[in-house]
Amino acid sequence: MSRKVSLCLMPELSMHFQMNDSIAVVMDVLRATSCIVTGIEGGAAHFIPTLQPEQAKTYQDKGYLAAGERGGEKVEGFDLGNSPLEYLDAELHGKKIAITTTNGTRAIEAAKSARICLIASFANFSKTIDFLNNSDRDVILVCSGWKGSLSMEDTLLGGALIHHLQSCSCDGDEALAAKQLFLSVKNNLLAFVKTSSHAQRLIKLGFEKDIDFCFQFDTSTALPILRNEKIEAL
Amino acid sequence: MSRKVSLCLMPELSMHFQMNDSIAVVMDVLRATSCIVTGIEGGAAHFIPTLQPEQAKTYQDKGYLAAGERGGEKVEGFDLGNSPLEYLDAELHGKKIAITTTNGTRAIEAAKSARICLIASFANFSKTIDFLNNSDRDVILVCSGWKGSLSMEDTLLGGALIHHLQSCSCDGDEALAAKQLFLSVKNNLLAFVKTSSHAQRLIKLGFEKDIDFCFQFDTSTALPILRNEKIEAL
Repeated sequence: MSRKVSLCLMPELSMHFQMNDSIAVVMDVLRATSCIVTGIEGGAAHFIPTLQPEQAKTYQDKGYLAAGERGGEKVEGFDLGNSPLEYLDAELHGKKIAITTTNGTRAIEAAKSARICLIASFANFSKTIDFLNNSDRDVILVCSGWKGSLSMEDTLLGGALIHHLQSCSCDGDEALAAKQLFLSVKNNLLAFVKTSSHAQRLIKLGFEKDIDFCFQFDTSTALPILRNEKIEAL
Repeated sequence: MSRKVSLCLMPELSMHFQMNDSIAVVMDVLRATSCIVTGIEGGAAHFIPTLQPEQAKTYQDKGYLAAGERGGEKVEGFDLGNSPLEYLDAELHGKKIAITTTNGTRAIEAAKSARICLIASFANFSKTIDFLNNSDRDVILVCSGWKGSLSMEDTLLGGALIHHLQSCSCDGDEALAAKQLFLSVKNNLLAFVKTSSHAQRLIKLGFEKDIDFCFQFDTSTALPILRNEKIEAL
């Protein structure tokens, strides 16, 4: 067990992690990385993450689809919001998409100095695990968090990944806590996550079906990877 | 359930919490708050927390006992280290103690703007719960963390307190996660915590008995409170 897995609870804490030689796995289960995985599965050419909606609009002027949310809702004038069900229904084959989200884009930004930067969700769980278990690099799981707070949904995906990683020891109590948390609720995962903060916010906004979708394992075999500021299929 | 309980994972995140009208509960189970509770139980007049060892030495020149650690070990020239078993054995009646620790003092600093600031450990668990359940103020549980990382031992104490708080809902996923984590390991608490980072460091330094002591519930009826920069019995 020479390699290690650690978990970064939110982008605000990413300075405590040495990304350079590791595989970073960015998780924003509700909902950015679920959208990206679903979009790549649907044939999108690539995604460009942007911190601000204005930057996504600039790409829109160049022929990109503009995607993303602020406060949970689709940005005015954008082609797509942040619901993975939209990406499932849309015709995305060959499309380029500029995406901005409250927390997910910041997590990608925090992880981009990693040797390899993967985009994960429950939708591509097995594909992500297969990739990680075929490598012997250290793994840093980067959760999106919520304004300086822990995001339960990402912590649970992190815990699930840690549980399935082979020949890997936990580096730090975040990883240990996430694994134990996942194991303790895994038979009741969806009901438990629906009691958490961000899921409650989405339910109030009318997006409960998104949560159901985002907590389905392996609806996709896509493995998006960040290369030169673009997220594309591995 | 009008009042709320939230949990601050480490002092670095305390700016996201509104302490002013709340009861803050500072936790550094391994080992500062376990020492303070044990010292107050043993009759110490008060503790003064200091961020730097040099400040504690200045108090020592004025007749205080100097207490605390750096890197887990007693500071050279100090009267006490950071092992609660020392405090149990020492004659502390009426003594004034200046204490400095790596993380605990910083957690106290982060919480001192609260309306009421309590010092808690498993040693005074029931006393802390009784106080909190006799109030209707919001509660903020402040963990000490470890250099920008989560401290499992404090998170578990936080979870235990949340589980026993009456008429109180979780504000934020940290509180929900801590409660679930505690419930999932409560029948196996000591063995689980011994797999975590700081406990492992202490075991390597020869302090395993401290961990055993720090995870005993209700060895004390003391309830230390911070008033005008001093920690004294309620």
